[in-house]
Amino acid sequence: MRHLIDTLDFTLEETKNILDLADRIKQNPDSYSHVADGKRIATLFYEPSTRTRLSFESAMLSLGGQVIGFAGAEMSSASKGETVADTSRVVSCYADIIAMRHPKEGAPLVASMYSSIPVINAGDGGHNHPTQTLIDLMTIRQLKGHLDNITIGFCGDLKFGRTVHSLVNSLVRYENNRFYFISPDELKVPAYTIEDTLKPYNSEYYEVSSLEETLPKLDVLYMTRVQKERFFSEDEYLRLKDTYILNREKLNLAKPDMPVLHPLPRVDEISTDVDDDNRAAYFKQVQNGKYVRMAVIMALLEITDPLTGQKVL
Amino acid sequence: MRHLIDTLDFTLEETKNILDLADRIKQNPDSYSHVADGKRIATLFYEPSTRTRLSFESAMLSLGGQVIGFAGAEMSSASKGETVADTSRVVSCYADIIAMRHPKEGAPLVASMYSSIPVINAGDGGHNHPTQTLIDLMTIRQLKGHLDNITIGFCGDLKFGRTVHSLVNSLVRYENNRFYFISPDELKVPAYTIEDTLKPYNSEYYEVSSLEETLPKLDVLYMTRVQKERFFSEDEYLRLKDTYILNREKLNLAKPDMPVLHPLPRVDEISTDVDDDNRAAYFKQVQNGKYVRMAVIMALLEITDPLTGQKVL
Amino acid sequence: MRHLIDTLDFTLEETKNILDLADRIKQNPDSYSHVADGKRIATLFYEPSTRTRLSFESAMLSLGGQVIGFAGAEMSSASKGETVADTSRVVSCYADIIAMRHPKEGAPLVASMYSSIPVINAGDGGHNHPTQTLIDLMTIRQLKGHLDNITIGFCGDLKFGRTVHSLVNSLVRYENNRFYFISPDELKVPAYTIEDTLKPYNSEYYEVSSLEETLPKLDVLYMTRVQKERFFSEDEYLRLKDTYILNREKLNLAKPDMPVLHPLPRVDEISTDVDDDNRAAYFKQVQNGKYVRMAVIMALLEITDPLTGQKVL
Repeated sequence: MRHLIDTLDFTLEETKNILDLADRIKQNPDSYSHVADGKRIATLFYEPSTRTRLSFESAMLSLGGQVIGFAGAEMSSASKGETVADTSRVVSCYADIIAMRHPKEGAPLVASMYSSIPVINAGDGGHNHPTQTLIDLMTIRQLKGHLDNITIGFCGDLKFGRTVHSLVNSLVRYENNRFYFISPDELKVPAYTIEDTLKPYNSEYYEVSSLEETLPKLDVLYMTRVQKERFFSEDEYLRLKDTYILNREKLNLAKPDMPVLHPLPRVDEISTDVDDDNRAAYFKQVQNGKYVRMAVIMALLEITDPLTGQKVL
Repeated sequence: MRHLIDTLDFTLEETKNILDLADRIKQNPDSYSHVADGKRIATLFYEPSTRTRLSFESAMLSLGGQVIGFAGAEMSSASKGETVADTSRVVSCYADIIAMRHPKEGAPLVASMYSSIPVINAGDGGHNHPTQTLIDLMTIRQLKGHLDNITIGFCGDLKFGRTVHSLVNSLVRYENNRFYFISPDELKVPAYTIEDTLKPYNSEYYEVSSLEETLPKLDVLYMTRVQKERFFSEDEYLRLKDTYILNREKLNLAKPDMPVLHPLPRVDEISTDVDDDNRAAYFKQVQNGKYVRMAVIMALLEITDPLTGQKVL
Repeated sequence: MRHLIDTLDFTLEETKNILDLADRIKQNPDSYSHVADGKRIATLFYEPSTRTRLSFESAMLSLGGQVIGFAGAEMSSASKGETVADTSRVVSCYADIIAMRHPKEGAPLVASMYSSIPVINAGDGGHNHPTQTLIDLMTIRQLKGHLDNITIGFCGDLKFGRTVHSLVNSLVRYENNRFYFISPDELKVPAYTIEDTLKPYNSEYYEVSSLEETLPKLDVLYMTRVQKERFFSEDEYLRLKDTYILNREKLNLAKPDMPVLHPLPRVDEISTDVDDDNRAAYFKQVQNGKYVRMAVIMALLEITDPLTGQKVL
């Protein structure tokens, strides 16, 4: 039995198979609308994350399956002290696969050690959110045609942004990717990402502070939110905030085929005047989210792909 | 693509078509139990309204469709600042139709401007709740046989009662309806309802304070809740409260075929000794609620009516 | 129309029929996967109880049915004062059967008096939780082969433990059962259980304080949680706590075929080193929970058992 706790749980080949399946589902949704008939996902969300939960539920329903679960508020108010290990065993009696969101790092891993059904990490603290990374990869591949030889810029809060770390971890595995980290000093990418991820792969990377100067060089831009509470002072926040906001004016500096990704929700780090630009890819990511999660569910449930006659993993 | 934000979004003819379809569904539920197979409603309830949410969900399931959504508590606790515009775009990737409840007036309208799927307003602040009005119309038509030439009394909180304003807006469009507004001074029907709705249609209306004196004249009685917090003083509340409570004794003053409507939940403005009277129509309204919402979902999803072979709108 | 408010609502023969059906479902789940097609359960949980709710929902889905409902947080925050009587009438329009959890004793009974569909009590305050008792009975019968001639020990909080009282109420109805009540003085079984239940049936019972001394005599051990807040003082709690914890060492004193039951969630009253012992039956109870609830739903909905061609009750 396989779980998905960390994006790196899948080899490059397995990742390719998942993304290929997600593409096939996107092209032929009807062929997959009953492959999970009679199967059930439990969405165990120990903290609210409405978008992610609805995406998983919609993915399972689109495969013909069913949904049970909880959505955060209930669990936080009614904690009777049951361990994640016990809960995962209990839920194994009610469902065929678990998608777990938890504020504590490692909780989904613990669940996977005790459950008798596959567990998908749907975000654990600042740690991992592997299906989001698969969505980012699918979107980049779809819009650029490949996952290597890409100059990608990450902009905003690179210190705490879990989706950034996770996508970097994945992209270093492909040849010749070049990384620009665009952030204020306070929010630079952590030392361990540089030492443990970029350097071992000899990846080319640059830490810069200007979005405008960097934009023209990029094949892909990955925006993240800059949260006010991350700054030392209100003054500092106000001084820097606008620097890391993408608007139509700044976007004019970028290549005409440079997709703009963002894991959502956005607040004001991307102006709404960018939404209609054909480079805006963040709502495409949302759509891909459903297909990627359908593919992951099929893979972990070992469902045969009706179009290829083969299992995914 | 059509939305339902305000009851007046539907013409008189469209309203008639919706009510006719709701009647057909009520008579032949089995004929409609698979017309929405593979379709999905997202119930986005930014404030809790259990009855309304369950009614929409039960309507979609009764058409063969599926449900995803959230129920208030979760969203209020976990607001990450996403706009309604962005949420409606995101959810458009997961569902085929949205039912949105929101404490702010206008939120469902904004959602409808950005979503790529139909939006139903399931109540926005004190503003609109169009499916409730359709339910009221269906119930009156069912019990009186017509929607014109009716003397209807509205009793209770006519100042803040959104269902009252909305039903008046609709009923003035039919010929020869006569309106009695029965309330304490503090809770009289707003000036704009009189100036903008009743007068332009030359509708006959009376503002009165005695339920008992008015009851014998009415063809239909529409009760609403008088909330304690609406009053200036506790004394005033206690003095007036009983005046606007309907009990079996007062009901003896009414015509034998005068239906009593109430949008529910009721607290004590209708005594439970009225429940068994055959004029009590408020639980019939609940039942009609499911059929009206099934009809609205079919209409907005442009599903062909299997009994007529035609689309509704 | 039948409801399930109290375990004793079912005669011994009816209880046997329910347990027999649960066994058949466990053996042949596929034969029952569509018997409730088009039927809908409403899970009305006025306080959160995630495990119980998921169990009921999973039971209904496994019969082919659908689910609507609420999960506690929403209702507690948004109480508009509707009575349980009104809510049960409203929900009768949306569903075919209700499972209700409520903090107040008697609420499900009131609901059953006003609803037009069957009501299952899913726990009302410290009062009743009849499906849990049926699960306990099914598990004991499955592991011991019979429900009479059993020496059963109840350990922990016997004063407030609703599952204990309810299981005792049921087990006295079978011949020759012998009861050991193992608890600190503060948490002894209530006088009314002894006077109203054990004595009228002439059941043999013992009130003891040592788990270790009692263990060797038992055919079945039923553990419950000892909550810190039940004690008069912190000292008293710390002094007694370990006495009522079951670990592998103590378990060595028990018969090799003595199942250990626990209604879950457990906190630390059963050490995890017991989990791998083949006498640990608490996760089997969880599995049986789904089958018992499937059987109860079928019984109350008067669904014909496809394997016997008969109705259950």
